[in-house]
Amino acid sequence: MADEKKLTTRAEDFSAWYNEVVLRAELADYSPVRGCMVIRPNGYGIWERMQRALDDMFKATGHRNAYFPLFIPESFMRKEAEHVEGFAPETAVVTHGGGKKLEEPLIVRPTSETIIYSMFAKWVQSYRDLPLLINQWANVVRWEMRTRLFLRTTEFLWQEGHTAHATHDEAQEETRRMLGVYRAFMEEWMAMPVITGQKTKAEQFAGALRTYSCEAMMQDNKALQAGTSHNLGQNFAKAFDLTFQTETGGSDFAWNTSWGVSTRMVGGLVMTHGDDVGLRVPPWLAPIELVVVPIYRKDEERARVLEAAQRVAGTLAARAARETGRLRVHVDARDGMKPGAKYFDWELRGVPLRMELGPRDLDANQCVLVRRDTRQKRPVSLDSLGDEVEALLETIQRDMRASALARRDENTVRGSIGYDRFRELMDGDGAFVFAGWCGDPACEASVKDETKATIRCLPDDEFRSVEAPTRCLRCGRPATTEALWAKSY
Amino acid sequence: MADEKKLTTRAEDFSAWYNEVVLRAELADYSPVRGCMVIRPNGYGIWERMQRALDDMFKATGHRNAYFPLFIPESFMRKEAEHVEGFAPETAVVTHGGGKKLEEPLIVRPTSETIIYSMFAKWVQSYRDLPLLINQWANVVRWEMRTRLFLRTTEFLWQEGHTAHATHDEAQEETRRMLGVYRAFMEEWMAMPVITGQKTKAEQFAGALRTYSCEAMMQDNKALQAGTSHNLGQNFAKAFDLTFQTETGGSDFAWNTSWGVSTRMVGGLVMTHGDDVGLRVPPWLAPIELVVVPIYRKDEERARVLEAAQRVAGTLAARAARETGRLRVHVDARDGMKPGAKYFDWELRGVPLRMELGPRDLDANQCVLVRRDTRQKRPVSLDSLGDEVEALLETIQRDMRASALARRDENTVRGSIGYDRFRELMDGDGAFVFAGWCGDPACEASVKDETKATIRCLPDDEFRSVEAPTRCLRCGRPATTEALWAKSY
Repeated sequence: MADEKKLTTRAEDFSAWYNEVVLRAELADYSPVRGCMVIRPNGYGIWERMQRALDDMFKATGHRNAYFPLFIPESFMRKEAEHVEGFAPETAVVTHGGGKKLEEPLIVRPTSETIIYSMFAKWVQSYRDLPLLINQWANVVRWEMRTRLFLRTTEFLWQEGHTAHATHDEAQEETRRMLGVYRAFMEEWMAMPVITGQKTKAEQFAGALRTYSCEAMMQDNKALQAGTSHNLGQNFAKAFDLTFQTETGGSDFAWNTSWGVSTRMVGGLVMTHGDDVGLRVPPWLAPIELVVVPIYRKDEERARVLEAAQRVAGTLAARAARETGRLRVHVDARDGMKPGAKYFDWELRGVPLRMELGPRDLDANQCVLVRRDTRQKRPVSLDSLGDEVEALLETIQRDMRASALARRDENTVRGSIGYDRFRELMDGDGAFVFAGWCGDPACEASVKDETKATIRCLPDDEFRSVEAPTRCLRCGRPATTEALWAKSY
Repeated sequence: MADEKKLTTRAEDFSAWYNEVVLRAELADYSPVRGCMVIRPNGYGIWERMQRALDDMFKATGHRNAYFPLFIPESFMRKEAEHVEGFAPETAVVTHGGGKKLEEPLIVRPTSETIIYSMFAKWVQSYRDLPLLINQWANVVRWEMRTRLFLRTTEFLWQEGHTAHATHDEAQEETRRMLGVYRAFMEEWMAMPVITGQKTKAEQFAGALRTYSCEAMMQDNKALQAGTSHNLGQNFAKAFDLTFQTETGGSDFAWNTSWGVSTRMVGGLVMTHGDDVGLRVPPWLAPIELVVVPIYRKDEERARVLEAAQRVAGTLAARAARETGRLRVHVDARDGMKPGAKYFDWELRGVPLRMELGPRDLDANQCVLVRRDTRQKRPVSLDSLGDEVEALLETIQRDMRASALARRDENTVRGSIGYDRFRELMDGDGAFVFAGWCGDPACEASVKDETKATIRCLPDDEFRSVEAPTRCLRCGRPATTEALWAKSY
């Protein structure tokens, strides 16, 4: 049962608000293991919906799932120089197994490039075996000093796609295709708009040729890197001798890509859509889309209302499947709890639509539907209920997308902006700032030192400003490209 | 592309046959990490079908999924005395994280009772919070000396259900309910009949009050323990202070159950249904139920046949969903590979139904359907194809069940059997032997020493012999119960 204490508001303390929503909506909890979280059923239900939608999209683009070992021999990690440098400091190491000290320590995978490409080398002989398009759903471990529920934990759940191709261009096409899949998922399913683009050298994946990311704006105007897609070039193929016979009879190293999204997205969902009442879940990802709260005072009303509630819910759930599956309905039949307390509970958890159904509603052959996103109420005839509910859920999904997009646009700054103004912004409310960059890593580094803001990405064409910035945000020299600057999680 | 070398036959060497099927059908592969396997897409696809079906069954019985940490503090493992004794020898231990030696070593979970019930203790206050019905899909690690693909590996994938109840009887009911869910899944979906019953003290789960299992007969007449369900009593509740306020205002420890099945079932599927040609997958679990092999010789035939194959496959895949989902159809359009080689390939992988479609078939508006289980061929009109395919798949599923059941019955021995005859059986072809047991662990132990056979379970009533055995198989004293004896994996 929910604690009816009010939440800290977002304006008071965004970070405290976030933790309270996650804990009180029972999305997750702290565990006794340092840096590790427990994902509770309310949070895991959202993750399952995310998994299902993404998995369908991966399969529709020709990928198949597989599973590789949790443990990676330490020597494997060392085979790609940049990779080990990037990941070694944050690994967990198994030194003992079955009561004995191991000859070679095992790393608990922080990511699986090394173990996966060592297997690919065994499976790929000829160009006919390419492309090899594999995905894995798995847990990974990266030792973190400062953790935040969902956003940064020592263990997290994710998927990692790994592919091998015959040419650079095919790998590049795959890298971009999967970035596009992520973007479509985030925008359509999560109702969370993102900016896509390439990472700078300083921010790219350890061992990649090029890294692309999806950057979403949270309600505190910070960026959340919500997914990444890497063109790995031939770096890992060379490290693991992943060669193939070409069509012309020669031999070449394969070209690899990898791409991943994680349970971090659940945190992104909270920080994109939550309000001061609690979570708001977009209908497509909601484990429960519609909760029915029966209203009765006297015992003689109880049976009639509960029976009607179950009947209505049953009819709704039996409707033919929509594109997003069958309607997910729940009747809150808890006894000894007032309707108001139930409303509070379901609003905290973010269920998109609530139906209130009492004896007078039944007399009038109607019910009251309440939207979680706008909290608007309206009476609806029980005769047209199914169509109304489906239409309302689609409206909510669309409106949540539009509202998140409008918020991002309001907090985005483009055009010539002086560095002083930029620093004020970063010290204040924050923003997404599209500004020029000279391309010098020294400028990138000093902006980070001075403001904590980083280049989130060099945005893809469609996100670039109509008038390209001409000067570097930091040094004022001619810009070689446009960059998205923001503070980030 | 499949290697067209013949498999070792089951009669020659069952164990070699099993490994060859798993490797050549590309269900799994050895990994460079000792004792760990890679589950390849063909094997993982079967596991995904298993997961989906079981997950639906768990949810239909009121369970919700959650996720708990991979790591367990060493001190947690020690809190339940029998539990630590059972699992400590086979654990993998993380001693270093983030470059530093840990103050307390972390165990990579071999099973999650300890970490999960420590969280339950935090979440459960009152009888109103009970029952708490949780399931987790996860990887676990048990250090194994001798490993077999799918059957016994250091890391494996499984689900573990964990529940808390207010009374012993409710927990007992849950333990039996989930054993029933496993049995239904194995018999209906896997087409693999099982004997259910209680484990003896010697064979039960470390920390349980009572353990029940599903025991299936493989084609070498050995038993495979394919799933277990445990009534944990209050053992873990006492270790982790999992108490609740009772309805009458007192305080009591909760009653727990846990239950699990794993990727081992994929091995069970192979050893139940495979034949000397390869794997046979029951349609309900087949990632591909029907493969279409287009047949053409001349280039001018190619376009016509391929187009027809795609059209037919599209029509079949678009049919309304059956109970087991949409029909899963694949067109094998690989060029430069003869139809015969394709047949060989799909038979090895066990696809239940093959459609052969050539120019003469198209002229006659028909195709040829070939069952994988019986290898029977028959021409079918393209007009009635959808109904025929669905009916045939149901027939195959039913026939595979019946055939596995008949094989088990043929290799089951009941009635008064002397110990000498029993030893001959166990030295020879093996069998499931239903015989009396005096209840003395010494008899159980000496049978194991002398024959390698163990009491698989004390079978549930419906599996017991019509005439209860009167004497102990080993010592000849009066039997106190009937037991199922067999060698096992």
